[in-house]
Amino acid sequence: MGVYSETFEVRTKGKGTYEITDEVQGIVAQSKIAAGTATVFVRHTSCSLVIMENAAPSARRDLENFFERLVPENADYEHDDEGPDDSTSHIRMALTRTSEVIPIADRKLQLGTWQGIFLFEHRRAAHQRKIVVTVMGD
Amino acid sequence: MGVYSETFEVRTKGKGTYEITDEVQGIVAQSKIAAGTATVFVRHTSCSLVIMENAAPSARRDLENFFERLVPENADYEHDDEGPDDSTSHIRMALTRTSEVIPIADRKLQLGTWQGIFLFEHRRAAHQRKIVVTVMGD
Amino acid sequence: MGVYSETFEVRTKGKGTYEITDEVQGIVAQSKIAAGTATVFVRHTSCSLVIMENAAPSARRDLENFFERLVPENADYEHDDEGPDDSTSHIRMALTRTSEVIPIADRKLQLGTWQGIFLFEHRRAAHQRKIVVTVMGD
Repeated sequence: MGVYSETFEVRTKGKGTYEITDEVQGIVAQSKIAAGTATVFVRHTSCSLVIMENAAPSARRDLENFFERLVPENADYEHDDEGPDDSTSHIRMALTRTSEVIPIADRKLQLGTWQGIFLFEHRRAAHQRKIVVTVMGD
Repeated sequence: MGVYSETFEVRTKGKGTYEITDEVQGIVAQSKIAAGTATVFVRHTSCSLVIMENAAPSARRDLENFFERLVPENADYEHDDEGPDDSTSHIRMALTRTSEVIPIADRKLQLGTWQGIFLFEHRRAAHQRKIVVTVMGD
Repeated sequence: MGVYSETFEVRTKGKGTYEITDEVQGIVAQSKIAAGTATVFVRHTSCSLVIMENAAPSARRDLENFFERLVPENADYEHDDEGPDDSTSHIRMALTRTSEVIPIADRKLQLGTWQGIFLFEHRRAAHQRKIVVTVMGD
């Protein structure tokens, strides 16, 4: 049994979903761990993680539009020091995920055919986002 | 420390919640791991996981009806190649969970009295769903 | 590699978010595990976990108010044996998290600057809540 951990950064250019599957798989390969789990964790409260359909961009646009309607920026929030996307970012993050754990076998993430790992950016402005991947197993 | 992994399948018969606690507990018992964690992971983007009240079916019906209202099929989605339950399935999945990690002690899942693990199927048609359980610990 | 597990309790005084970061960090320090993961798990279906902005209480009030509107108590639920906050508690739990996995390095939780771990209580009455922390790693 062993532990291997690496942090990588993603440069986002405003709201949307950004695929990070290759980065996570690269760290799994680097770890030399054949079987176990990879824990993906975002170190932020205004972006989040989601495992989503990786083929049709229209599926992701529907997801992004749904969140715009569900947590609208033009509602009445108390916390808006950083603009209309301040509290909405935290709420959208809370409705999705900060950590995700994916099984590993044969040194590969055991994702289904249509599953991709995405960073879900909730801020309008560009951001540098830190993601920690912890691989544990044999 | 050791790793034990097994995949099992669930046959769903349309939308709803399907309890999988016994299947997961069976794999934990099989693993011979006494203390650690069990990671449950669904390999799909149109169904998800939820830990839910395991006694009253009415609590689960309320949950299922809430999701019908929150993410309605008769809304305007761009991604509908596979029918009106296409994008809604992905959105409902994103609002719940793809992975869940449960502590193990004395070779048993440390669930609370009222907690059951459920597969949450978001598709109208019957599906064969693959769930990976990874047990790690001593 | 090793496993260390501890359960602690939080006394809640009605709906709201209660920070538990220090309790989780204390268990990580106690574990003597320097690198790996801490899995936080709530053994209940009417409260949940959320990693949230830890500085401004107004951000958490916006989150709490959002959930009051999204899952209103005055809607029509079938499961209301324990009052108007019965089904709403389970639904709010399902929309947030039962387990959260946080990376550890140098015996510390690798949370971002603004991240705190919170118990999200969905019940009006006071409750004693059990949280299991499982630390695994080297």
